[in-house]
Amino acid sequence: MAEKITSRSVDYSQWYIDIVLKAKLADYSPVKGSMVIRPRGYAIWERLRDELDRRFKETGHQNAYFPLFIPMSFLKKEAEHVEGFSPELAVVTHAGGEELEEPLVVRPTSETIIWSKYRDWIQSYRDLPLLYNQWANVVRWEKRTRLFLRTSEFLWQEGHTAHETRAEAVAETELMLEVYRKFAEEYLCLPVIAGKKSESEKFAGAVDTYSIEAMMQDKKALQAGTSHFLGQNFAKAFDVQYQTREGGLDYVWATSWGVSTRLVGAIIMTHSDDKGLVLPPVLAQEEVVIVPIFKTDTKAEVLAYTDKILAALKAAGRRVVLDADDNSPGWKFAEWEMRGVPLRIEAGPKDMAAGTVVIARRDTGEKVVVAVAEIPAKVAELLAAMQKDLLEKARAFREANTHDIADYPAMLAFYSKEGAGIDSATGGFARGLWCGGRECEAKLKADTKVTIRNMPADQQQDINGACCLCGAPAKHRAIFARSY
Amino acid sequence: MAEKITSRSVDYSQWYIDIVLKAKLADYSPVKGSMVIRPRGYAIWERLRDELDRRFKETGHQNAYFPLFIPMSFLKKEAEHVEGFSPELAVVTHAGGEELEEPLVVRPTSETIIWSKYRDWIQSYRDLPLLYNQWANVVRWEKRTRLFLRTSEFLWQEGHTAHETRAEAVAETELMLEVYRKFAEEYLCLPVIAGKKSESEKFAGAVDTYSIEAMMQDKKALQAGTSHFLGQNFAKAFDVQYQTREGGLDYVWATSWGVSTRLVGAIIMTHSDDKGLVLPPVLAQEEVVIVPIFKTDTKAEVLAYTDKILAALKAAGRRVVLDADDNSPGWKFAEWEMRGVPLRIEAGPKDMAAGTVVIARRDTGEKVVVAVAEIPAKVAELLAAMQKDLLEKARAFREANTHDIADYPAMLAFYSKEGAGIDSATGGFARGLWCGGRECEAKLKADTKVTIRNMPADQQQDINGACCLCGAPAKHRAIFARSY
Repeated sequence: MAEKITSRSVDYSQWYIDIVLKAKLADYSPVKGSMVIRPRGYAIWERLRDELDRRFKETGHQNAYFPLFIPMSFLKKEAEHVEGFSPELAVVTHAGGEELEEPLVVRPTSETIIWSKYRDWIQSYRDLPLLYNQWANVVRWEKRTRLFLRTSEFLWQEGHTAHETRAEAVAETELMLEVYRKFAEEYLCLPVIAGKKSESEKFAGAVDTYSIEAMMQDKKALQAGTSHFLGQNFAKAFDVQYQTREGGLDYVWATSWGVSTRLVGAIIMTHSDDKGLVLPPVLAQEEVVIVPIFKTDTKAEVLAYTDKILAALKAAGRRVVLDADDNSPGWKFAEWEMRGVPLRIEAGPKDMAAGTVVIARRDTGEKVVVAVAEIPAKVAELLAAMQKDLLEKARAFREANTHDIADYPAMLAFYSKEGAGIDSATGGFARGLWCGGRECEAKLKADTKVTIRNMPADQQQDINGACCLCGAPAKHRAIFARSY
Repeated sequence: MAEKITSRSVDYSQWYIDIVLKAKLADYSPVKGSMVIRPRGYAIWERLRDELDRRFKETGHQNAYFPLFIPMSFLKKEAEHVEGFSPELAVVTHAGGEELEEPLVVRPTSETIIWSKYRDWIQSYRDLPLLYNQWANVVRWEKRTRLFLRTSEFLWQEGHTAHETRAEAVAETELMLEVYRKFAEEYLCLPVIAGKKSESEKFAGAVDTYSIEAMMQDKKALQAGTSHFLGQNFAKAFDVQYQTREGGLDYVWATSWGVSTRLVGAIIMTHSDDKGLVLPPVLAQEEVVIVPIFKTDTKAEVLAYTDKILAALKAAGRRVVLDADDNSPGWKFAEWEMRGVPLRIEAGPKDMAAGTVVIARRDTGEKVVVAVAEIPAKVAELLAAMQKDLLEKARAFREANTHDIADYPAMLAFYSKEGAGIDSATGGFARGLWCGGRECEAKLKADTKVTIRNMPADQQQDINGACCLCGAPAKHRAIFARSY
């Protein structure tokens, strides 16, 4: 049997790390805070990157690549931006054997270097919009790190668009939030809440930040993607003006938006169980593992049987692997469950005699007996069902752990237990009215570590009532939670 | 008309830069030596990356991702390696607001960080081989840079494999050289010479380096990819031993291999002309541009005609764009020629009346009249022909400019003119016997800047004779050239 991992109910954090390490998704790096993404982890990132890239292109975006190094002076041009990122910067002071005249920052995000080039490329409304994205590594020096979820270097995409009007830029910000929401739900099986961030939680340099927020199995929130309306802040900082249709001059309007390798952590935390990784089938390196069950005297004939099944599934375009090693079936079952392969096909002499196989689902453990000729169709059906069910299961979990909270005592009671783990009756998402004030929001954070995750776009009707934190007249409905 | 670019015969270097900038492939960056890859340039990289990645996976390789930062002490573990890379390093000394205890190097290549992890992952022959690749950015601080060809930061892939035996590692080195050779020829239309580098030109830390070398239109060589047999050098430096099949302990055998965004420069330099970019069709963002030819009174009907052609080509899966702007046809022709779109379809009222269009090839300028119903088939045929012809044209150019050289006076005469430009009768590749000695090789370089590019694998028979540099008995046949 594969080495057991820590149970979620015993130690949720350790359970997560156990899966990452034992499913060989990632490993620690000799450089503090960095990570090594191993092939099985990178394959997940690659699949989600390709699908997201397809959706970006479908919405008219193009990829480009901007330099890793940014002059320190560029960051200082946008006051809030430099203030937000200063504590996290890695700085190159020497290169080519000499001390540099001006230190170079390793990009924590690329607004400044990109807008310095947009100044060269944008003269007139005819040059707009620019709808650019880049896939890149960024560095934000972190004191407390966790594989995938928070690392000093991570991989991400960052979209940076330039527009003629405020309305167009706001529409782009909202469009990309919606692209993320649909992608998270359809592809990653992550139900998310899309909405605007509070002032205190927005991106350094943005006018408005929007996010998608997911609930992990420990009921904490994880910010899975952000989309920022940057107004004219970076255009002003880098003097990017354009000739308008009316012949005047105006500053260009901007957005930026990104998701990162953190998503891989979100996927693991949302779907996996005490046996190991559970993956949405579309993300799995192998959709199906075939485990032949044999003794020495039946090995040859069983393998002949499973080889045909392997060939049929390959011909059907499935990502499939056959495990013909001499380890015991039980050992193999545990190993492939750890690795998160969505479907397992078991076939031994009895199945052979009946012309059938057993197919087991990774998420539910459910087993079905299937005639050989039906395997490709049944596999397609089960994979589609699993993709759908994982989303619904996660959504049901989130709904069961989201509560309407009316006032501060109720809020404190809801978050009374630190962490409020997977089996606890308290904790989760609190939904409540909010006055929009910074003070009550700050007090809640200080008292409980709970923050406003966002103000769901589809829940801003019927906001008459009192702020659930301070009792003042409400302006928004917000989602509160502890978060990663 | 689009702004003219410098002619190749007037100033080859300026011609190249003109194309890169005016076809909007790349731009200078505010950070010295770095570049910005613009969408039209990145699209070329993306297409070649995806195809190469497919070929890597087909040969059993998996992608992973290792950290950007490497502790300085790691580089020092392999003596030749650190000596080779020291002058080019960018160094992070401060991060998170504090001075680091140990400076971190921004990876110039990743052998050291990767082998430090291989130590954790390899215990037994059962763990071998590891066939990993990563797509990443690297930094090598350069004094003299040129867009795509030599930049301080560049994008590349680096394969790093670990093997049980010397023979297996050598076979992998040769396999990947062959993957590169076929890819360069089939996909990039770059005819290349595959062979071993001389001792003085090999990778810092390698036992043997192999390269593929292409000839640019100015007859200089460009190293388009390298594959290194690393022996046990890095395994010894990082103490990576494995239990052998016989129960003993041995050091692991290694290879590494890479190509970079430099390939985009090679493609531009090999195929383009004085009108601008010429691209192998498989690499082009748009395979076809349709230019409707109309006056105000015929615009609507011509556009109705070309819209149908556009739809038919899209339905056939072609990458096609229609330029319906009000600029003159001549202006549009020049503009799309500059951008390197392989085929142009022209259609005006006369073509409409005849139910035909004119299709022009970007590389030859050749025009054919084609009936509307035949367009998709003719387009497919012309694109395939162009892909084939570009390779053959480049191969013929290389052959015409490769000469057998018997002795040093002949060598000096061949390289008598500095640069020996595109129209010159001298210069190019010299093919000659070589004794293998470092001294005559060094003297040639000092006298002429000419180096040994490699020793072609398929030309090492019949090497009886005298070294063309010093007259000593020959051991190899080599290709000599000035190079990028």
